[in-house]
Amino acid sequence: MDFATTDDFIRAALKEDIGTGDITSQSCIPESGNSIGRFTAKESGVICGINIAARVFFLLDPSIRFISEIKDGDSVKKGEVIARIEGPSRSILAGERVALNIMQRLSGISTRTAKAVAELKGAKARITDTRKSTPLMRVFEKYAVRTGGGSNHRFNLADGILIKDNHIAAAGSIAAAVRSARQNAPHTFKIEVETETLEQVAEALKAGADIIMLDNMTTKLTAQAVKLIAGRAVTEASGNMGEKNLKKVAATGVDVISIGALTNDVRPLDISLKFDNGR
Amino acid sequence: MDFATTDDFIRAALKEDIGTGDITSQSCIPESGNSIGRFTAKESGVICGINIAARVFFLLDPSIRFISEIKDGDSVKKGEVIARIEGPSRSILAGERVALNIMQRLSGISTRTAKAVAELKGAKARITDTRKSTPLMRVFEKYAVRTGGGSNHRFNLADGILIKDNHIAAAGSIAAAVRSARQNAPHTFKIEVETETLEQVAEALKAGADIIMLDNMTTKLTAQAVKLIAGRAVTEASGNMGEKNLKKVAATGVDVISIGALTNDVRPLDISLKFDNGR
Amino acid sequence: MDFATTDDFIRAALKEDIGTGDITSQSCIPESGNSIGRFTAKESGVICGINIAARVFFLLDPSIRFISEIKDGDSVKKGEVIARIEGPSRSILAGERVALNIMQRLSGISTRTAKAVAELKGAKARITDTRKSTPLMRVFEKYAVRTGGGSNHRFNLADGILIKDNHIAAAGSIAAAVRSARQNAPHTFKIEVETETLEQVAEALKAGADIIMLDNMTTKLTAQAVKLIAGRAVTEASGNMGEKNLKKVAATGVDVISIGALTNDVRPLDISLKFDNGR
Amino acid sequence: MDFATTDDFIRAALKEDIGTGDITSQSCIPESGNSIGRFTAKESGVICGINIAARVFFLLDPSIRFISEIKDGDSVKKGEVIARIEGPSRSILAGERVALNIMQRLSGISTRTAKAVAELKGAKARITDTRKSTPLMRVFEKYAVRTGGGSNHRFNLADGILIKDNHIAAAGSIAAAVRSARQNAPHTFKIEVETETLEQVAEALKAGADIIMLDNMTTKLTAQAVKLIAGRAVTEASGNMGEKNLKKVAATGVDVISIGALTNDVRPLDISLKFDNGR
Amino acid sequence: MDFATTDDFIRAALKEDIGTGDITSQSCIPESGNSIGRFTAKESGVICGINIAARVFFLLDPSIRFISEIKDGDSVKKGEVIARIEGPSRSILAGERVALNIMQRLSGISTRTAKAVAELKGAKARITDTRKSTPLMRVFEKYAVRTGGGSNHRFNLADGILIKDNHIAAAGSIAAAVRSARQNAPHTFKIEVETETLEQVAEALKAGADIIMLDNMTTKLTAQAVKLIAGRAVTEASGNMGEKNLKKVAATGVDVISIGALTNDVRPLDISLKFDNGR
Amino acid sequence: MDFATTDDFIRAALKEDIGTGDITSQSCIPESGNSIGRFTAKESGVICGINIAARVFFLLDPSIRFISEIKDGDSVKKGEVIARIEGPSRSILAGERVALNIMQRLSGISTRTAKAVAELKGAKARITDTRKSTPLMRVFEKYAVRTGGGSNHRFNLADGILIKDNHIAAAGSIAAAVRSARQNAPHTFKIEVETETLEQVAEALKAGADIIMLDNMTTKLTAQAVKLIAGRAVTEASGNMGEKNLKKVAATGVDVISIGALTNDVRPLDISLKFDNGR
Repeated sequence: MDFATTDDFIRAALKEDIGTGDITSQSCIPESGNSIGRFTAKESGVICGINIAARVFFLLDPSIRFISEIKDGDSVKKGEVIARIEGPSRSILAGERVALNIMQRLSGISTRTAKAVAELKGAKARITDTRKSTPLMRVFEKYAVRTGGGSNHRFNLADGILIKDNHIAAAGSIAAAVRSARQNAPHTFKIEVETETLEQVAEALKAGADIIMLDNMTTKLTAQAVKLIAGRAVTEASGNMGEKNLKKVAATGVDVISIGALTNDVRPLDISLKFDNGR
Repeated sequence: MDFATTDDFIRAALKEDIGTGDITSQSCIPESGNSIGRFTAKESGVICGINIAARVFFLLDPSIRFISEIKDGDSVKKGEVIARIEGPSRSILAGERVALNIMQRLSGISTRTAKAVAELKGAKARITDTRKSTPLMRVFEKYAVRTGGGSNHRFNLADGILIKDNHIAAAGSIAAAVRSARQNAPHTFKIEVETETLEQVAEALKAGADIIMLDNMTTKLTAQAVKLIAGRAVTEASGNMGEKNLKKVAATGVDVISIGALTNDVRPLDISLKFDNGR
Repeated sequence: MDFATTDDFIRAALKEDIGTGDITSQSCIPESGNSIGRFTAKESGVICGINIAARVFFLLDPSIRFISEIKDGDSVKKGEVIARIEGPSRSILAGERVALNIMQRLSGISTRTAKAVAELKGAKARITDTRKSTPLMRVFEKYAVRTGGGSNHRFNLADGILIKDNHIAAAGSIAAAVRSARQNAPHTFKIEVETETLEQVAEALKAGADIIMLDNMTTKLTAQAVKLIAGRAVTEASGNMGEKNLKKVAATGVDVISIGALTNDVRPLDISLKFDNGR
Repeated sequence: MDFATTDDFIRAALKEDIGTGDITSQSCIPESGNSIGRFTAKESGVICGINIAARVFFLLDPSIRFISEIKDGDSVKKGEVIARIEGPSRSILAGERVALNIMQRLSGISTRTAKAVAELKGAKARITDTRKSTPLMRVFEKYAVRTGGGSNHRFNLADGILIKDNHIAAAGSIAAAVRSARQNAPHTFKIEVETETLEQVAEALKAGADIIMLDNMTTKLTAQAVKLIAGRAVTEASGNMGEKNLKKVAATGVDVISIGALTNDVRPLDISLKFDNGR
Repeated sequence: MDFATTDDFIRAALKEDIGTGDITSQSCIPESGNSIGRFTAKESGVICGINIAARVFFLLDPSIRFISEIKDGDSVKKGEVIARIEGPSRSILAGERVALNIMQRLSGISTRTAKAVAELKGAKARITDTRKSTPLMRVFEKYAVRTGGGSNHRFNLADGILIKDNHIAAAGSIAAAVRSARQNAPHTFKIEVETETLEQVAEALKAGADIIMLDNMTTKLTAQAVKLIAGRAVTEASGNMGEKNLKKVAATGVDVISIGALTNDVRPLDISLKFDNGR
Repeated sequence: MDFATTDDFIRAALKEDIGTGDITSQSCIPESGNSIGRFTAKESGVICGINIAARVFFLLDPSIRFISEIKDGDSVKKGEVIARIEGPSRSILAGERVALNIMQRLSGISTRTAKAVAELKGAKARITDTRKSTPLMRVFEKYAVRTGGGSNHRFNLADGILIKDNHIAAAGSIAAAVRSARQNAPHTFKIEVETETLEQVAEALKAGADIIMLDNMTTKLTAQAVKLIAGRAVTEASGNMGEKNLKKVAATGVDVISIGALTNDVRPLDISLKFDNGR
């Protein structure tokens, strides 16, 4: 997550939220007014996005001081202070909503990921995200997944080969698709194939897939597939991976469990900013 | 929601998801291959974003035919077809994820909004969103709220004056803040004040606020505030507006109920794309 | 007027004026040459844009020192020094024209505004601008109006409702237009209606307009309209507001007088940059 | 004036004026409403910018029909129709102000230029503009000058060498500056030198200047300079070239008269758009 | 290679070459003039970039007709016509240089690649490019390599893991680097390790590298390395791969031969555009 | 070459090469790791682009220290250190390839230019480049030509008039083209005409061309043309200017020799970056 990308994103978000100017602050707070405030967690969770919030205020007004009390990945309890802020009131208020919108969403993701990871404690399977992320926020959401202790799946369509049902339909068969990919793609790529039945698993294995996704399978079927594959390919369980049955899925011996909901179905972590001179 | 903005957003989202090229399709599906597919709702809800999905595919490859079966705002049942698509397999697959990510999220918003609006049937209060939206998606999310039958609150900091607790802290008092705003802001703006107690309500009224937000008040307190205001200002209830007590809040006679969760805490509506030649 | 917007504007203006490089300076002034110069007013007026000029040079070459002798909103007499500048000759000359073009135009606006405001001394009416501004310079020109002591009208089509003759034509009637707007627009918006006759004024009042524009009316008609409205709506006189009859218009008791020419028909204030080692 | 540049400019201007959406039209005019209107000159002049206005509406909504009645460079009388327009009311109203702001300004420039050119009828001198143009509109303003019958001076600092007083100060002398420029600049450039006295004219001539600018000279001094130069360099009169004494200046035999006010001190030509179903 | 990327690139290249306008054509060719011309190969080679050239002219002026006589990947002999063009003379001349600069460079790359591939006829090794490409042209240059019959290596730092000497130095050892990468990178990535000695090859093998680069090794050493690896990893020969000894290197049995010079040391293929009405 | 342009170019190049992140460094080098390295010339030549390389690293990570040992235009021998670098290993490796790709290409250009200039020692002719440059790198490549001791030809189509064969074909004749250009172009432009025969030279002279290009002429014909022109126009030899016959061409007395290959047919100068803790 480099600063150029982050800065572009923040600037666009600020432009969206500020438009032609914060008419409230400009009209009712003197330009010279300063305030001190605190970002406080209003519920427990794993915080993510503090540096991005800090950057929001820096880009808006370098004279703002933003002092983190904790760092990304730290767990907080309700009422705990995440950061303190000090500077021109107008500038702080202009960045407040953007900073909160980002930090709340990312913290929601890392909190959910951390719970899933904790569920798997002791198992060998790694938890990963998917491409079911919010448009234009993927780099941040994947960072939040890592912050919560998870791993990333491929970032986009360019950095990994994943042959799914529609590809197989279009290519004719798993065998044809894998053969073609092996020949045409750079030699640096692994080939992953999505399967839904043991027959497809066998076909993918035979075709030489490096990774086999076990999609929407029951835990029982997943276990059979893992046994069938027997280490000849990396195994990835996917599809409706509710946190409830994570342990059972892991017990099948799969290498990877990918969960779309990590970035797709996010409850934001409640965080507030209050001025010390406030009510 | 104009096309220029939509197109910029879509292009950025496609660039994020496609990167330097969809290596899977390029390596395993022939350039000349065509497919036919269907977007299907996998659960019930109010659909939003069909035109945006259509535009995703148009911008990617104008030779794709995207035929909507329904239109934004229509309710669907599980299994219902939303749209049919036909064209080069590679192009369709390159746009699939972006189209789904957008449509699922917006449909999640309009579905949730529609439920809240239905809850209020017969009451005078309108349901509105807030600025707790996803960075860079606000224009779309506010459209989804309208699609679900809700109304919009101000779009950004530039098109409405809302004096909140931190502003009051910085300005010194409600009276000072309103007076300042009246004098310095264009005469075209209404002035809204956030209040948490009846004392503040009275102060805001006296200061001449056009809209009074009743923030985080109990239903009982809300009712008292509405009675106190007695039509001299527009009243807006806000804060932790769980859908459960919407009816009770509306019964207080407030004019507006604003709900952050409409755009902040979205469960995506499940939608899939399957090729007809698929499994 | 935030720095991000200002910087984007300045960079684009510099790119327009410098193109692929200032061939004159590069070919005839040594890279190491330094100069000292003065920005001087060549006529009297109210200066606006000093900080923008300073920023032009900072963005071009941070080693330039730009020292303001006065600040935006100050009045100058012919011959008065506005700012001193010191640094690499090539850099100063590369930014000279852009800095002057901006400062001269903005100072022309604030000077004209200040004259109009002075004309109204003692009257209650505020002077405002319109949307008749130079494309891509509106944020700066509206700032210049404020710098000259004026107020701003709405910034763009998104932050205020103004139902004009063409809208009324398209909506069917004033009543229909206002009713529709009230229902569909966010509750945070005031509704302004443009009128040309007393009948329209009455219609707008009855429809519940918050602001009534009295467009292109004679002073006499304006006075009658103000009397008719009797404080039930904010009144705004507009259309061919030559500075000559401002006092008379204000005497009608209108709240606002909006003048397109403030930003539309600008005579630049003459300002020059001379090097001290120059002729 | 290519379309890429024009389109970028128009899109930015539309974004500035429309912001997040035209709340007036959206809230009070039905999406399906259509209108017919006319752009009419409200005073006499030379029209410029019709194609740009047409492009404004095309970019906004390709379903709008814009039919020009005249073309750029044509003279109009008060009341004459410039163009007719037909299409969705919302789209037309969203583009109206931007189209008018551009067309009025450019027509103001071409009208003023045409008057200056008419003044010189029969003389050999050509009228040119300068770099005193509106930031980000230079390409359009220079086009308006040509449309009015004038010629262009250099476009920016990269396409012409003009050694002015500050350059001479920084380079040490006219001779040093010209020598340096000749040696370091591409062989494809002419070298122009600004002079204020006959001594400087002589120095520039001796140094081998291709063009000699006679800056802020009296008509008498200009005549002497032209005689001194005697065709050995192109001569350009510049500085406070009020239209009143253009004839006298031309009579001195100068080749070029450059006038900053053509683009710097523009009175917009009054043009209106009225819907036929309007008042 | 999608059109969005291509178009952005072309527009930037046109802006670079045209600047504020093609002053030559505009001043000496009538706006209404049309021409017919031919793009002709002035030497033998494999053509690449015809569609990009076609797009250059389309973006500049859709009224230009560009008719390809051959397609990318076709071999031409000196004097053969590549494409015919017809349309406004000004537009064609404005795009000529950009079209030629791109097509000549890409054809130079595909010609060189085709020669290398021909050299390997019958061998199993594939020829690939590297990241030694021209800044901002990589997507096109990699396309040219494929057009010439070669394969691509990873596109950028995000879509492949290649542990080189400096990484090993920074990580401490090959074993440490591979272990770390395996643990921290998405499970979808292969791991490639650069080696210079047989000891390093053995170390990389033991660490579980998926691909082993044999960098700057003699042919003899390469052969020993291939034998040592014995199919347990993909082998890639790299470094100073002059076309002369390609056959020998391939004879060692390596899977991949990567050649920086394919995109790094390009002699453009000579192509010209002549108008039929020309000399 | 201003920093704004340079920075935009570098950022785009870094985005191209880094994509969504350097997965190798991120996964196998600790975030806190630091390295020291040296950029070394692996062959002799004239170095160009050191400051750009320095800027690459600065933009990527301001905590990197880049210490130049020599400066642009200096000659190096094989093995000589160009610069030292110190800082976070991840950041250095993320910028390595971009810095090398730019510096190697520019040094290749300045080295080739320097050789050509050396060849002409004592002759009056200046060596210039052409518009046959790499798309989007022209400003840098022309800088490299100057760094090697050469001169620049016009930068783009907007800053010089060059009437070539296709223009003449479109305009009808040399005389017509020159007359038109003189009348329509700004008076600040010189007019250059491309000729291939003595008849055309005579025609161009008569038409009043300021510069006459002698295109693809034999040395003998060039000499005759120079004699015919006899100082009445600047003379420029062009076309297949292999370095071998430069001396002979110069001996004809031409003023300018323009060589497309300087930027069109570049062999990169070999430069490497090695970490001191490396192998």
